[in-house]
Amino acid sequence: MKKSLNIGLVGYGFMGRTHSNAFRQAPVFFDLPWRPVLKAVAARNVERVRSFAENWGYESFHTDWRDLVARPDIDLIDIASPNDTHHAIAIAAAKAGKMVMCEKPLGRNAKEASEMTAAVEAAGVPNGVWYNYRFVPAVTMIRQLVDEKKFGRIFHYRAKFLQDWTISRDLPQGGEGLWRLDVSVAGSGVTGDLLAHNIDTALWLNGPIAEVTAMTETFIKERKHNLTGRMEPVGIDDASAFLARFENGSLATFEATRYARGHKALYTLEINGEHASASWDLHDLHRIQYFDHGDEGRVRGWRNIHVTDDDQPYMKHWWVPGLQIGYEHTFIHEFADFVQAAAQGRSAAPTFRDGLATDYVTDAVLASARSGRWERVPSDVHVG
Amino acid sequence: MKKSLNIGLVGYGFMGRTHSNAFRQAPVFFDLPWRPVLKAVAARNVERVRSFAENWGYESFHTDWRDLVARPDIDLIDIASPNDTHHAIAIAAAKAGKMVMCEKPLGRNAKEASEMTAAVEAAGVPNGVWYNYRFVPAVTMIRQLVDEKKFGRIFHYRAKFLQDWTISRDLPQGGEGLWRLDVSVAGSGVTGDLLAHNIDTALWLNGPIAEVTAMTETFIKERKHNLTGRMEPVGIDDASAFLARFENGSLATFEATRYARGHKALYTLEINGEHASASWDLHDLHRIQYFDHGDEGRVRGWRNIHVTDDDQPYMKHWWVPGLQIGYEHTFIHEFADFVQAAAQGRSAAPTFRDGLATDYVTDAVLASARSGRWERVPSDVHVG
Amino acid sequence: MKKSLNIGLVGYGFMGRTHSNAFRQAPVFFDLPWRPVLKAVAARNVERVRSFAENWGYESFHTDWRDLVARPDIDLIDIASPNDTHHAIAIAAAKAGKMVMCEKPLGRNAKEASEMTAAVEAAGVPNGVWYNYRFVPAVTMIRQLVDEKKFGRIFHYRAKFLQDWTISRDLPQGGEGLWRLDVSVAGSGVTGDLLAHNIDTALWLNGPIAEVTAMTETFIKERKHNLTGRMEPVGIDDASAFLARFENGSLATFEATRYARGHKALYTLEINGEHASASWDLHDLHRIQYFDHGDEGRVRGWRNIHVTDDDQPYMKHWWVPGLQIGYEHTFIHEFADFVQAAAQGRSAAPTFRDGLATDYVTDAVLASARSGRWERVPSDVHVG
Amino acid sequence: MKKSLNIGLVGYGFMGRTHSNAFRQAPVFFDLPWRPVLKAVAARNVERVRSFAENWGYESFHTDWRDLVARPDIDLIDIASPNDTHHAIAIAAAKAGKMVMCEKPLGRNAKEASEMTAAVEAAGVPNGVWYNYRFVPAVTMIRQLVDEKKFGRIFHYRAKFLQDWTISRDLPQGGEGLWRLDVSVAGSGVTGDLLAHNIDTALWLNGPIAEVTAMTETFIKERKHNLTGRMEPVGIDDASAFLARFENGSLATFEATRYARGHKALYTLEINGEHASASWDLHDLHRIQYFDHGDEGRVRGWRNIHVTDDDQPYMKHWWVPGLQIGYEHTFIHEFADFVQAAAQGRSAAPTFRDGLATDYVTDAVLASARSGRWERVPSDVHVG
Repeated sequence: MKKSLNIGLVGYGFMGRTHSNAFRQAPVFFDLPWRPVLKAVAARNVERVRSFAENWGYESFHTDWRDLVARPDIDLIDIASPNDTHHAIAIAAAKAGKMVMCEKPLGRNAKEASEMTAAVEAAGVPNGVWYNYRFVPAVTMIRQLVDEKKFGRIFHYRAKFLQDWTISRDLPQGGEGLWRLDVSVAGSGVTGDLLAHNIDTALWLNGPIAEVTAMTETFIKERKHNLTGRMEPVGIDDASAFLARFENGSLATFEATRYARGHKALYTLEINGEHASASWDLHDLHRIQYFDHGDEGRVRGWRNIHVTDDDQPYMKHWWVPGLQIGYEHTFIHEFADFVQAAAQGRSAAPTFRDGLATDYVTDAVLASARSGRWERVPSDVHVG
Repeated sequence: MKKSLNIGLVGYGFMGRTHSNAFRQAPVFFDLPWRPVLKAVAARNVERVRSFAENWGYESFHTDWRDLVARPDIDLIDIASPNDTHHAIAIAAAKAGKMVMCEKPLGRNAKEASEMTAAVEAAGVPNGVWYNYRFVPAVTMIRQLVDEKKFGRIFHYRAKFLQDWTISRDLPQGGEGLWRLDVSVAGSGVTGDLLAHNIDTALWLNGPIAEVTAMTETFIKERKHNLTGRMEPVGIDDASAFLARFENGSLATFEATRYARGHKALYTLEINGEHASASWDLHDLHRIQYFDHGDEGRVRGWRNIHVTDDDQPYMKHWWVPGLQIGYEHTFIHEFADFVQAAAQGRSAAPTFRDGLATDYVTDAVLASARSGRWERVPSDVHVG
Repeated sequence: MKKSLNIGLVGYGFMGRTHSNAFRQAPVFFDLPWRPVLKAVAARNVERVRSFAENWGYESFHTDWRDLVARPDIDLIDIASPNDTHHAIAIAAAKAGKMVMCEKPLGRNAKEASEMTAAVEAAGVPNGVWYNYRFVPAVTMIRQLVDEKKFGRIFHYRAKFLQDWTISRDLPQGGEGLWRLDVSVAGSGVTGDLLAHNIDTALWLNGPIAEVTAMTETFIKERKHNLTGRMEPVGIDDASAFLARFENGSLATFEATRYARGHKALYTLEINGEHASASWDLHDLHRIQYFDHGDEGRVRGWRNIHVTDDDQPYMKHWWVPGLQIGYEHTFIHEFADFVQAAAQGRSAAPTFRDGLATDYVTDAVLASARSGRWERVPSDVHVG
Repeated sequence: MKKSLNIGLVGYGFMGRTHSNAFRQAPVFFDLPWRPVLKAVAARNVERVRSFAENWGYESFHTDWRDLVARPDIDLIDIASPNDTHHAIAIAAAKAGKMVMCEKPLGRNAKEASEMTAAVEAAGVPNGVWYNYRFVPAVTMIRQLVDEKKFGRIFHYRAKFLQDWTISRDLPQGGEGLWRLDVSVAGSGVTGDLLAHNIDTALWLNGPIAEVTAMTETFIKERKHNLTGRMEPVGIDDASAFLARFENGSLATFEATRYARGHKALYTLEINGEHASASWDLHDLHRIQYFDHGDEGRVRGWRNIHVTDDDQPYMKHWWVPGLQIGYEHTFIHEFADFVQAAAQGRSAAPTFRDGLATDYVTDAVLASARSGRWERVPSDVHVG
């Protein structure tokens, strides 16, 4: 019988659901070295946490995450609660010798993320950040193509994350499900929420970003706060865009917004190299567009690749060619990778250190938006 | 505590996996009246059935489906084994008073299907056929639009199911994973395998088919048989196409093949009405194309709808707008519907009788391909 | 100075415009051996023909085509008048020793087309039929790929031509601009108007059709006739579909209709071979979708080819890569080919004989729709 | 008989061809108040200018543009020669009282453009700049929708112009067809060549740009110069991107490059407003994507509009619905507008003053790329 991996989850929101699903599904579709056990979940509202535990099959629940971290029978603390809780929970979990997985962004800023990274590294525990889009098979395949030098010298990278769900003035900020609009909880607006995804993937595919120049905007200046019941200034950025130079000499544009009418969750990325280009978008996540300049000129075109075959990343674990998987599978893949590595005493990417790298970029973006100048992204970062 | 629904599965192939996943996932994402229990699985190879049971969490296993049917603690027999086994298992299960779900096509022909339908109806047990594509949210939504009379008079229906996995002459017929090429097991080739899906959806969306004229072809005439080790004549149809007239006066074209290079599982359908049209394809199953002639002319166009919102069928059970689901979810939806109805003593569509209706059409298609004439599809069918 | 090619046009409708534009533009963009001169146009309404001549730069005009044919200074008679006039004009022109170009379909039926073909062949004059879609660069390129054996054995061909402009009951039949709804003028409905295009391209790309089974429908049974002012029975087919077997063993589906809501002029075609597939549609005529099974499996996909490069058919005569041409250019290409061949005493394809081949298929389609049986298409046709 | 509009063209390159085609085609498809006469063309190479004149039907030719401007029988001077010639020719033409049309960008910089604008305004002659993409019917239709307040408050604008034709190191700079790589002739690289198009459309659709921050890059630092035969430093920008704030409060990203492998001439634009969004791209220029938030939520989606109907801009002059036009038609439309206005003594947009507005933005972009700071775009510009 396989060794158990006892999981303690903090948070029962949207991310609590995606993570829990990953814990349940990964062992069925992947041959994992350990057997995940949904041991306990912690969240503040006793009725809701009880119901969540029952629905997802958690053996027990708590209303204070400290109780969870204190349990000796928990191996892995998974943080799926709002951004302002990541720092304290991760550090406490690391100190308690737990493995730690944390929802992105790692911290509300690089300072928090740096301390969290120092903590898991000092504890020597396997750790990971849920930058799940790396685990879309199509995105993983672009990384493979990069590793195989298919693109040659890279000239351009561009990424966007466009949503439209906060356009209404009537949407309040703060509280259940809306903490992403409350700067004190979220740390920032779309920069930490959406751009952070774009940046993580970009760093993974195209290496470090050297410098950025940015602009941010808050289109709706005041919203009712759900906790105070009063109109209050909005502190988050509704939209954020930046130009970047990567260390490899390529140029990039990045943009995220929640005010792009018609786009629900349109994360798009494109990479242009000397010999090839590739692009991908989240609305049809099972496809890559790939252009190979080596093809005969007359019949050269963007190849629309349906990523559902056995020889494409992660897909041999699923169905048969032509049958697409969806969003939730990215979490399953990431968790499978995490467990495989952890059983060998390693951390699978993206680690806390990778999460920190993104926070350095988002800090630089926000700094540039304030300064109106190009800002360097710290390189050769030492933690702890 | 909810009442258990004890499930006994027959078969551990591709469909055994999709059904089992549905049994596991449905109660987490849907509020079901009963609690599915993966009680037992039956299949011939003891090593493989043991491993399958362990992986998917079945409590026990059998190597003879008769032992499964004989168990008094099983409520529902689910048939996911090759086509030639459906008839015997379904009838035995019905006689034993079990609820029965059966993978499509219901029988290898309408005679088998008719007897199976008579059996479940005589037993008065909830029954269903896994025509899972009805449960793609986009497809369900087209049915909603039909029900709401958005299309007006229907002029045209067209459907295709294009694959390319049997083009190689070296592919053998028969045996594990390849029984679909063996006519004695499968009953027919693409007609029962692929066209059956097209037909089921068409009957559901557009009503009964009155008559058909068809052609079939077997491109590769001989293949090695995996069980005999010898080259043997291929009895299945590699490709099948037909013209049809629906009882509502609309015209249709249908085509299925496993020789359409470049298409993995391209099920496409389109319906053209007086006021609107809609189309869908399986390679991007989370989208509908919808044309509403009522839109202002200058800005009229096919609406590319990303079916991931709460107000779209089944989607409130999943994630947030913009985040797509995949193939496997269709089985989860169908099973959730089945359980909801069964708890009320009903059968949810598609029932065995619906499966029989499709088999009448596929029989007529094969008959027309032989006769070279238009063949009427039996209407007002009485079973038992 | 180049020799003049004196052109006499019959008809000033839609096709009179596209042909005239070709006569004007071809010599500017192609290096033609002869210099086209828009010598005269003939049509019945004196005011309109005068205005047309002035607008397009014809030197003179006539109200009776016989006067045009009688002129010794005319080298080429181009027939752009309704279908019921093709037969008489073409035969008279051939007898007068003129080169003849004729709008499609060649005749209202194969009998007319056969006599017309006999006439031009007896006269030994260069002749051509305006099956202009062969001259879409993307379509021509598919023919190149066929000639280069890129597809291997062909399994499937499918083509559709979907329109929606006659759905309204209030649309009258007959008269100016609406003669296509009057069976006595048009000969048939969508079969001769739209399917004829599909068939011509198919014969060119995939060789002869051996047999067909068809259905046709007239959805609106009565329409006001513009010439009589009375409601009269509609004699044309509103929709027409057929299954076919090509002589090379491939299977095909064809469909045309003017009742497919949302489609303006959606001519689509697809060819599936052992090694490759290609598809094209008229709504984005500057693109081909091409799938090459020889590509590495992991990055194999349909190539979306933007046909605007110098090494793609006809495109070196136009602009620069990425800049698309449109519908009217197909006529320019066909006319350029016609003149190149005629200057060498030859006829460029598609000739009258090619037009006749299509009429044999459309006759078989209409016969099958009446008989309900498979009908053979005459092969090895001898004319005259 | 209509009054003649005697045209004198300078330049016989790519743009000389597109303009000449417009002069020939516009009077056939549009009812113009004046009759364009291709009177003379001027260019340096006597053999080539003679051949060009003969091919396009110019009555005469010159090898010095000054001779053209000096002719009393010329009404309109059209400048299609390289950028470094625009300033002198336009000013001389204006002084001679000619109407002036000039290829974009108006000047190599705003100083040149300002003097040119002052000259035509002082002379009071109709004038225009060939920002032809405004005249794509789809783009014109977006402007209509803006004027009709369909979008509500605008939040975002984004535009790109991606090409890949200069990636090879072996491509020389300067001389025939390659002057766009020579900074002394072109003024700048992609900023003036490609971004200028993006900017002109943006100013037209979304109003003035307030400020920008930019980056540029020259990927290949040295290229052989065709005129000197030596390797010489490359002075142009190969890629250019900028962030912008419009005066209406919307945010924008702009990017142009000739190093985006796989893109031939991919001009894309998108506008996101409170109530609607629209996007367009040059590779399928006959389509708009349009999202109307007013549609019923469940069936809301991006409408893929095929802009070929009579009620869509300019399209009633062409063919029938579903039949697309191409690139060259944009010039025809612009010229038709120019003549309509000129006959009334007016200038149609885009005028020299509009061209100057774009040059102010491109100057600010290049200044910001040098300074690393946000640069204001001059507003309320006074010329002369």
